[in-house]
Amino acid sequence: MKFSIGRTAFTRGLNTVSRAISTKTTIPILTGLKIVAGPDGLVLTGSDADISIETTLKADDPDNMLAIESAGAIVLPARFFTEIVKKLPKDTITLEVGENFQTMITSGQSSFTINGLDANNYPHLPEIQTNDSIPLAADLFKQIISQTVVAVSNQESRPILTGVHFVISENHVMAVATDSHRLSQRKVTLEKPINGSYDFVIPGKSLTELSKMIDDAQEEVSLSVTENQALFVIGNTLFYSRLLEGNYPDTTRLIPDSHDTRISFEAPELLAAIERASLLSHESRNNVVKITIDPDKKSVTIYGNSPDVGNVEEDLEPKTLEGNELEISFNPDYMKDALRSFSQATINIDFTSALRPFTLTPTEDSDSFVQLITPIRTF
Amino acid sequence: MKFSIGRTAFTRGLNTVSRAISTKTTIPILTGLKIVAGPDGLVLTGSDADISIETTLKADDPDNMLAIESAGAIVLPARFFTEIVKKLPKDTITLEVGENFQTMITSGQSSFTINGLDANNYPHLPEIQTNDSIPLAADLFKQIISQTVVAVSNQESRPILTGVHFVISENHVMAVATDSHRLSQRKVTLEKPINGSYDFVIPGKSLTELSKMIDDAQEEVSLSVTENQALFVIGNTLFYSRLLEGNYPDTTRLIPDSHDTRISFEAPELLAAIERASLLSHESRNNVVKITIDPDKKSVTIYGNSPDVGNVEEDLEPKTLEGNELEISFNPDYMKDALRSFSQATINIDFTSALRPFTLTPTEDSDSFVQLITPIRTF
Repeated sequence: MKFSIGRTAFTRGLNTVSRAISTKTTIPILTGLKIVAGPDGLVLTGSDADISIETTLKADDPDNMLAIESAGAIVLPARFFTEIVKKLPKDTITLEVGENFQTMITSGQSSFTINGLDANNYPHLPEIQTNDSIPLAADLFKQIISQTVVAVSNQESRPILTGVHFVISENHVMAVATDSHRLSQRKVTLEKPINGSYDFVIPGKSLTELSKMIDDAQEEVSLSVTENQALFVIGNTLFYSRLLEGNYPDTTRLIPDSHDTRISFEAPELLAAIERASLLSHESRNNVVKITIDPDKKSVTIYGNSPDVGNVEEDLEPKTLEGNELEISFNPDYMKDALRSFSQATINIDFTSALRPFTLTPTEDSDSFVQLITPIRTF
Repeated sequence: MKFSIGRTAFTRGLNTVSRAISTKTTIPILTGLKIVAGPDGLVLTGSDADISIETTLKADDPDNMLAIESAGAIVLPARFFTEIVKKLPKDTITLEVGENFQTMITSGQSSFTINGLDANNYPHLPEIQTNDSIPLAADLFKQIISQTVVAVSNQESRPILTGVHFVISENHVMAVATDSHRLSQRKVTLEKPINGSYDFVIPGKSLTELSKMIDDAQEEVSLSVTENQALFVIGNTLFYSRLLEGNYPDTTRLIPDSHDTRISFEAPELLAAIERASLLSHESRNNVVKITIDPDKKSVTIYGNSPDVGNVEEDLEPKTLEGNELEISFNPDYMKDALRSFSQATINIDFTSALRPFTLTPTEDSDSFVQLITPIRTF
C-alpha cells in the first residue's frame, strides 16, 4: 500500500474515527485505526466494540489531495499515529507499508517508520442494509439527543436505563430517557411517514459521541436499525452503535395528566436562581433545594442551606402562578439539567403535591417535550 | 461592617487575591479571604503562607461603585464566597456583617447568609519598607521570569534549586535557575542604577503566580527585598513572597567559554523537529533524542527511537554549521523548554564534546541569555 494525502483532510478524518477509539479496550488491535486504500479512496475505521466509526476520504475530492499509488490495508497505533500526522512539517504526507507491516510516513525531510498490524485481524463491522433508512433533520436530531440524554442513568445496575428509548412509526418519533429519579420525553413529527415501525434503545454514550460529530453544516442524518445495531450516515461517515438488549419500562403512565399548582418562568431566569441556591446545597450532605409557593401572596421563594457554610433565600417573580399553596424539595442538579434543555423558552412547572413528581413543559407546543422530576422528602 | 460595591470590580479583586489561596493549607483560616473596609476603600487579602496577595479597591475610583457605610473586617470562605459573588443577579451587591460574624450578601432579590470568621485571627502580612524599591519594566520582568523558571528544579531534595537566584547591583540584574541537568541565565541592564546590592532566591512557584498577575496594561513592577521576604507592587496590588534560605551554588563556572562545534537555527524550526522526534522518544523508557553533525557533508540529522513503536529520522537545515563532527544525545523535553524560551529568535548551539554541556544563545545580544543542557551518555 502506498498513497499521498493532504495533511489537513487526513487529520480531519483521523480525528473523526478517533472518537470511537478507546485506550482502555481489552482487545489490543482496537487501540489501532484501520486504513484501507482502494479504488474509491481511503477508508479509515475506529472502534471500541460498542461504537464504530468509518469515514471515507474520496479519491475524487480535490480537497483531500489524495493519490493512491497501490491499494492495501494496515492498522496503525491510533493516538500515536494521529499525533505524528498533526506534527508533520509539510502539507502533503506520504504513507507506504513495507515488509512486516512496517509503515513509513514521510513529509518534507521528516521520515517516521512505525510498526503496524495486519488489517486482516481487525474485527469486521456489522452489515446493515440502508435501503429502509429513516432521514432525520440534523439540527432537530441533535436537539432530541441533548434533551433526552440528560435523564439517562449512569448506573450499570439497570443497563437498559443507560440508553434512550426510541419509538418510531409513521411520522412520529418519541424519545424517552429516565434514571428513575427523573424522566425526559421528546416527541417530533417527521415530514414524511416512514415504512414500518421501530422500537429500540440506544446507549446514551453513543448518542453523546454521535451528537459531537454532527456539525452545523450537516443537513441530514439517516438512520438504519437492525435487531442489535443502529447505523447513522452523516455525509461520508458511518456511525455504528450497538443497541441495548431488554425491554424498556413503560414510561407513558409516569407522566401526570393533571396538576394542582402551576408556575411559569423564563427558563434561564429560574436556572440562574437555582444555580445560586445550589451553591449552598452542594456544600451540604443532602443536596436539596426547597421552593415555597403561596398563591394568595403571589410569592414563590427558593431556599438553599448548608449547616457549615450558611443559607440562601431568594424571592422569584414567576410570569404566572395559579393553584394551591405548596412547599416542595428537590435535587437542584436535576432541575438545572432540565432547565438547560429548554434553553431560552418559557416553561410551565406543574405540581400535584409535595411527594408526587412534577413536570416542566414549554408553554408553546407543550406536548412535544416534558421533563419530569421526582421530589425529595424532607419531612 | 457594611458596604455596597460593583460586582465586576469586586469579582476582579476576588480573583486577584484568590491566586494566593490554596484549599490544601494546614492553617484553616487561610482557606478564607480577608475583607477590610476602611476610609480608603476595601482591602482584600489572600495567602497560603508562602505567597500573600493584597489588593485595594479604592473608594474614590468610580469603576468600583464602592460605598462604605460602616468600617470593619471579616474573613469569608474564599472559593465559596467568590462563586456566590460571580452568580449574583444584579450589578451591585451589598455585604453586611452581623452578630457572630454572620455575613449577609444581597443582590436584587437574592440574599445569602454565610458564616464568617474573626479577622483578628488572620495572620499578619510581613512588614516591608518600600523606600528603596527597585523599579522594573513589567514586560521585561515577565520575560526574565518565563526564561528562567523553565530550569527551576521541582525536586524538594535540594530546596534552594526550586528557586530563581537574583543578583542585582548598580544597573545589572542577573537571574539564574538550574535543576542540575540544565541551567538558564538571563542578564538585563536597568535604565537607572539602584542603591545597594541584592542577592536572593525566590521560589519558582511564586514567580509563576506573579507573572500571571502582570497583564499587558501594566508598565512597571516595583520590587522591595528584606532578609526573608520580597514584595512586588503592581498597581493597587501587593504581592509578597517568602525567599528561600541557604546559599545558591556558584553557577558562573558552569557555562563553557569556548566551543568546538557550532550550529545555528531559527528557534521555532528546530523546536518543531525536536517535537516530532520526541513523539517517539516519549514512548521509550529512556527519553533520548540524538543529533549527528557532519560539517564535511554539511548535514545535521536528528533521530528518535522507541523499540515498541518505531523510529524517526529528519535531516535539518541549519543556517550555519562550523567546527568538528559530533554525535550527541539529550533529553528532548529540556531542549523544547529551552527553545520555547527564545520564541522567534535565531540561536547558536555551541558544543564542545558528546559528554560536555552545550549552550543555546541568541545570535544577537548573546551575552544577555544562555540556556545550558547536559547531554545524556548513551554509549
